[in-house]
Amino acid sequence: MADARTQPRVVVIGGGFGGLYAARVFRHQPVDVMVVDRTNHHLFQPLLYQVATATLAPTDITAPIRWLLGRQRNTRVLLAEVTGIDVGRRTVTCDDGALTLEYDYLIVAPGSRHSYFGHPEWEKLAPGLKSIDDAIVIRQRFLLAFERAEKAATADERRAQLTFVVVGGGPTGVELAGMLPLIARHTLPDEFRDMDTSTSRILLVEGGPRVLPTFSEKISGEAQRELEELGVEVRTGSIVSRVERGAVYVGDERIDTASIFWAAGNQASPLGKQLGVPLDRVGRVLVNPDLSIPGHQEVFVVGDLALMGPEVKRVPGVAQGAIQSGKHAARNILRLIERRMPTAFRYRNLGDLATIGRHRAVAQFPTFEMWGKPAWWFWLFLHLMYLAGFRNRLSVFVEWAYAYFRYGLGARLITARSKDM
Amino acid sequence: MADARTQPRVVVIGGGFGGLYAARVFRHQPVDVMVVDRTNHHLFQPLLYQVATATLAPTDITAPIRWLLGRQRNTRVLLAEVTGIDVGRRTVTCDDGALTLEYDYLIVAPGSRHSYFGHPEWEKLAPGLKSIDDAIVIRQRFLLAFERAEKAATADERRAQLTFVVVGGGPTGVELAGMLPLIARHTLPDEFRDMDTSTSRILLVEGGPRVLPTFSEKISGEAQRELEELGVEVRTGSIVSRVERGAVYVGDERIDTASIFWAAGNQASPLGKQLGVPLDRVGRVLVNPDLSIPGHQEVFVVGDLALMGPEVKRVPGVAQGAIQSGKHAARNILRLIERRMPTAFRYRNLGDLATIGRHRAVAQFPTFEMWGKPAWWFWLFLHLMYLAGFRNRLSVFVEWAYAYFRYGLGARLITARSKDM
Repeated sequence: MADARTQPRVVVIGGGFGGLYAARVFRHQPVDVMVVDRTNHHLFQPLLYQVATATLAPTDITAPIRWLLGRQRNTRVLLAEVTGIDVGRRTVTCDDGALTLEYDYLIVAPGSRHSYFGHPEWEKLAPGLKSIDDAIVIRQRFLLAFERAEKAATADERRAQLTFVVVGGGPTGVELAGMLPLIARHTLPDEFRDMDTSTSRILLVEGGPRVLPTFSEKISGEAQRELEELGVEVRTGSIVSRVERGAVYVGDERIDTASIFWAAGNQASPLGKQLGVPLDRVGRVLVNPDLSIPGHQEVFVVGDLALMGPEVKRVPGVAQGAIQSGKHAARNILRLIERRMPTAFRYRNLGDLATIGRHRAVAQFPTFEMWGKPAWWFWLFLHLMYLAGFRNRLSVFVEWAYAYFRYGLGARLITARSKDM
Repeated sequence: MADARTQPRVVVIGGGFGGLYAARVFRHQPVDVMVVDRTNHHLFQPLLYQVATATLAPTDITAPIRWLLGRQRNTRVLLAEVTGIDVGRRTVTCDDGALTLEYDYLIVAPGSRHSYFGHPEWEKLAPGLKSIDDAIVIRQRFLLAFERAEKAATADERRAQLTFVVVGGGPTGVELAGMLPLIARHTLPDEFRDMDTSTSRILLVEGGPRVLPTFSEKISGEAQRELEELGVEVRTGSIVSRVERGAVYVGDERIDTASIFWAAGNQASPLGKQLGVPLDRVGRVLVNPDLSIPGHQEVFVVGDLALMGPEVKRVPGVAQGAIQSGKHAARNILRLIERRMPTAFRYRNLGDLATIGRHRAVAQFPTFEMWGKPAWWFWLFLHLMYLAGFRNRLSVFVEWAYAYFRYGLGARLITARSKDM
């Protein structure tokens, strides 16, 4: 792409929370910005489990990155997959070399995938929940499970189809597991004549001693109690030792199930390797306090790919961590351009929230904790406020109002491709 | 599936307009009904082009068949593909023999696919628009075309990416072609810095002498004029002679394009062959005046698969044709159960509508014709009224209001799988 630029060029890899909020800092600033993402949309990841459970439509929680940055005249958006970074020559290659971008400053914000603890072959059997495609896959598998249960030839087969196992007791796992009993016991029973969907069994398996390990012990206990009230079997201190077609092994116990959903562990983007700096065990880049990488003060890593050094408080892999680090890296770039010293990043804990089905949630803030119904309403309010873009907010509001008053699910769509699953 | 039924068993193949409205006739009637469809959803097909053009989300125009029939206690729904019909033994086999259903009465309403005029190999290059999957494919191709145009290495390549060819001048082709100029000239220009999307070229190719051939000549002319005002090149009397990757041949002229969308011709479902009765050239079943098939008064064919005999007025392949014939077949089954004579079907022409972009439409009713802005508002009102289910109606209303006031597109989602297209 030919262009004659005189301003410093900033390339931002990734249009998630880290990349998008970084790019927005450059509005009206004397830089040329290029945001590269392999999808055309920004994803509001905290609500992804609602797409997976057919409450929201994929378009409710996505917005085109071009549209979100459309009025920012100094910023361009490119749909391409970054396949190489050369920090020596200051270039980023896309689509296996089809396109090369030069930069003066680089922000790397590619996010992460789930970690299958050395068993990548489990991914096909136990889909994760990171992208909108993941959510569509989970939605289709879970809707198909009920369809197949009705057609099951034996009672054992039906029981396996009506058993759902969620692996990982972090916020995603808790929120996903919390939705399933509602659907099985409230939404679907009327629609199946030959079986009782409310007999469905939902398990949440967590390797550590408690669910929501980043929350306080009190809040963890409250969350587990609320899940159990809904009818979720919570298994803490339980390691998944094996996944095969039709079954998962928790320790030595074999559980027959057609639906295993993975919400455990994080594996950083392989792009970290391209930077030529030390990585930790899960592939994260050990960044300087100002978020730049060792030896290259013009290259910044933010979000899930960044591992702050021991002198900085660990930044959790949540939206706020990505947003705050993205903004900070962008501001440091502006400081460098003005020949000022970059500043160290400090994570400001704004609080954590997790919702558990209907009317139940837990919330933990620096100065207070909440649970039950008030926390749920608070969660609802916050998420409607934060959703990117007016349109999605209104549309989500309509879907939620429908789900709330009618126990309905607005987005129960199985597309033809899912038949092969 | 084991069950002890004493009432007559009706199997309905297909949950589209024909099958769904047939099934609804049996509410509170002394029959057991089984509706079989290979998808889990009913599709509001008249708005499919709005999904293809990213205005509506797939879930806005679909609703689970189970949910639509959930309160009809004598009716069950089965997600399965019908692979065989044995009218002698009165059985329907599903999923290649995995499941066999017995019936006393059968309604066959499987719909149709587009016809590629003896060139099935064109389908991959020129996707049709019949299912929600089709619409998602077209949406992704058309959104990707702009992304690829921006990355294009040469002016020729960019021009080809910005050329869109719609084949077929019926309502679907006209409505699809009418949306594209709006998007290229109003929605997208602000979001692409390196090219002018309003230079996009949109062609509508029709083999016959005029667009909308089922409408009056006056209305056809009006529709063509409105399309041309929007900037669509309308080519009537033009036959597509060849389709290849990156180009379509209209007569002898080669048009370089990355986006060919097919809305021409109909090919009836191959299920018609299973009935052992005469079919016409495109695979439709020649039914008796009461919609039953020759030799089997208990088997009815409705919707796109049915070809009414010469004594009956031809029924157009639109939603109303399927709805009316579906209802009539169901009522005839009830008459047979009551040992009364079935009655002949008569199509009642309620009128035809086609919308052309924004503020433009044509409508033709038995007693009046409309075009321009009034026809467009009328179309909007009618479609909101007819949409199946309150939830979708509200959600569609929100999307349309957004699109209307902001020239925005609410559903511009490219999913990862589309990369391979």
